[in-house]
Amino acid sequence: MRQTALGIDIGGTFTKFGLSDIDGNVLMEGSIPTYTHKEIGTFLDALSAAINMNLDQIREPIDILGIGIGAPNGNYYKGTIEHAPNLHWKGIVPFIELFSAYFDLPMIMTNDANAAAIGEKVFGGAREMNDFIVITLGTGLGSGLVTRGKLIYGHDGLAGELGHTNVYPDGRECNCGKRGCLETYASASGIKRTVFKLLATNNIDTPLRSYTYESLTAKKITEMALQGDPIALEAYEYTSDILGLKLADAAAVTSPEAIFLFGGLAKAGDIIVEATKKSFNKHLYPGYKGKIEIRLSDLMDKNAAVLGASALVWSEIANSDVIRVPQQARAV
Amino acid sequence: MRQTALGIDIGGTFTKFGLSDIDGNVLMEGSIPTYTHKEIGTFLDALSAAINMNLDQIREPIDILGIGIGAPNGNYYKGTIEHAPNLHWKGIVPFIELFSAYFDLPMIMTNDANAAAIGEKVFGGAREMNDFIVITLGTGLGSGLVTRGKLIYGHDGLAGELGHTNVYPDGRECNCGKRGCLETYASASGIKRTVFKLLATNNIDTPLRSYTYESLTAKKITEMALQGDPIALEAYEYTSDILGLKLADAAAVTSPEAIFLFGGLAKAGDIIVEATKKSFNKHLYPGYKGKIEIRLSDLMDKNAAVLGASALVWSEIANSDVIRVPQQARAV
Repeated sequence: MRQTALGIDIGGTFTKFGLSDIDGNVLMEGSIPTYTHKEIGTFLDALSAAINMNLDQIREPIDILGIGIGAPNGNYYKGTIEHAPNLHWKGIVPFIELFSAYFDLPMIMTNDANAAAIGEKVFGGAREMNDFIVITLGTGLGSGLVTRGKLIYGHDGLAGELGHTNVYPDGRECNCGKRGCLETYASASGIKRTVFKLLATNNIDTPLRSYTYESLTAKKITEMALQGDPIALEAYEYTSDILGLKLADAAAVTSPEAIFLFGGLAKAGDIIVEATKKSFNKHLYPGYKGKIEIRLSDLMDKNAAVLGASALVWSEIANSDVIRVPQQARAV
Repeated sequence: MRQTALGIDIGGTFTKFGLSDIDGNVLMEGSIPTYTHKEIGTFLDALSAAINMNLDQIREPIDILGIGIGAPNGNYYKGTIEHAPNLHWKGIVPFIELFSAYFDLPMIMTNDANAAAIGEKVFGGAREMNDFIVITLGTGLGSGLVTRGKLIYGHDGLAGELGHTNVYPDGRECNCGKRGCLETYASASGIKRTVFKLLATNNIDTPLRSYTYESLTAKKITEMALQGDPIALEAYEYTSDILGLKLADAAAVTSPEAIFLFGGLAKAGDIIVEATKKSFNKHLYPGYKGKIEIRLSDLMDKNAAVLGASALVWSEIANSDVIRVPQQARAV
């Protein structure tokens, strides 16, 4: 009987799920919209129905060892989603407590970037590493920091908010309520802000002038940068300069072996990696020079968020002496 | 037979040592100058002679379980002192390898700030904590970061260089070769630079105008601040503003339960603690607000560096299955 883990990645727009084995083979995957469910109850109904429907399609005997859940502001210690700005469900949502009514399986939760970091360790480029950082460059900037082979969770389960370290104390307004946070510069939304700033300060001709703030996407900026558009390239350089500076700060704290870049902006490849390396090495404590690699995630083209969520099960549940629950027992 | 640990704190000027038991009772202590020994060999001769002389004075039977060594740029994994800017011995000094020729005891090394952090955990205010940070405000700024109850060493054994995170990329020249490092602002040397900057930009009358750059000490500035001198107070405020900002960054990485301030500048007490708290809370990610304490080290008035070094033995050697070597066996 094949042993598997169910991974769930809760995003602001979509929630994705997938069942994979220890080698990262995906047996099934699916998704449901997140944002249409204003209440957590209807969301969990829809999610469990979609998962069960997909599980029913699997034509081989399987064990499901557990469910790993990556969620914005997911609290590892409590299994709660706490004050996530991009989700409808406000306050503290006792996610695992509620979801346990649907599946009688061990569950483990962390934030999406931490899940990506565990994914990198179980399935990706960090397989042989015990000290590394994964940066997810999505709508915001997430970070998962691993030291001695384990994620840093901090005393409250919410450590690893590199996106909210300070670049300019009086800088850009952040969704978190502060100003000048790293993610207002180095993220999909940050690079869009930078493009608009550059359009305002330069007269350079670029097709980017035909976009509204609402219609411009980081994906478009990345495409334009890969085609050599000067404003898009300058926006990437500005983004990378700031990212490299703050990654040098993070490296001074945890002295990692490598920093992996992941997510939309990382799709610019060398454009972001090389410029970030340059700034990083410029600002790095000399004692660390030449010891820390900056590279793209090995999971770039895979469903990394779901793999990462399932990796939580492989790294934390399957290694413990948890009782392995056969598939038939899954529905309560 | 009383079980003890020998702690050694190597500083640029003096090297202190002491023998203590698990309760922090000090059975003997002593020191030798560091800076007079241009060669590591003569230093080790002098250090071991001084230790043995002091050990001979002890009139009760003791076990020495091991030797803990705190040293600037001390590498935990290798037992080496690597490129320490304030020591004569250049390059990579294989300290434990060399010192093992003098004492047949288990030895463990880390940097001085890490030793202070372990001291806080074993003997001080962090006894019940698993996630905390200790900041040592000496000539430079050292930091020991503990997560899941263990120090963060990173992949090379040299993690925890908060003193070299970036405040202003084009700011003050740092001994490390970079510009704008935190320790050029928040340290004994940093606050002196700030006083000189304030003397240049203000016309405020202060006895501080009668000091040369060479003669002014952080101790004097602290005394003046405690007496209400406006320039000294403003220097502390400037220092605390920057320190609070960068501690908020560090908190975003490790989400600690508390941050302990230790060393010369911490002797300003409330003057530095309250202003640092204010800036810290202003710049802190809202998700952490109200959860993280900033306070003085509990070991402020004790020989914390030596206690911290010996605490390494209690936390890492005595808990393992190391063979306990009686005192008589100490000299090779």
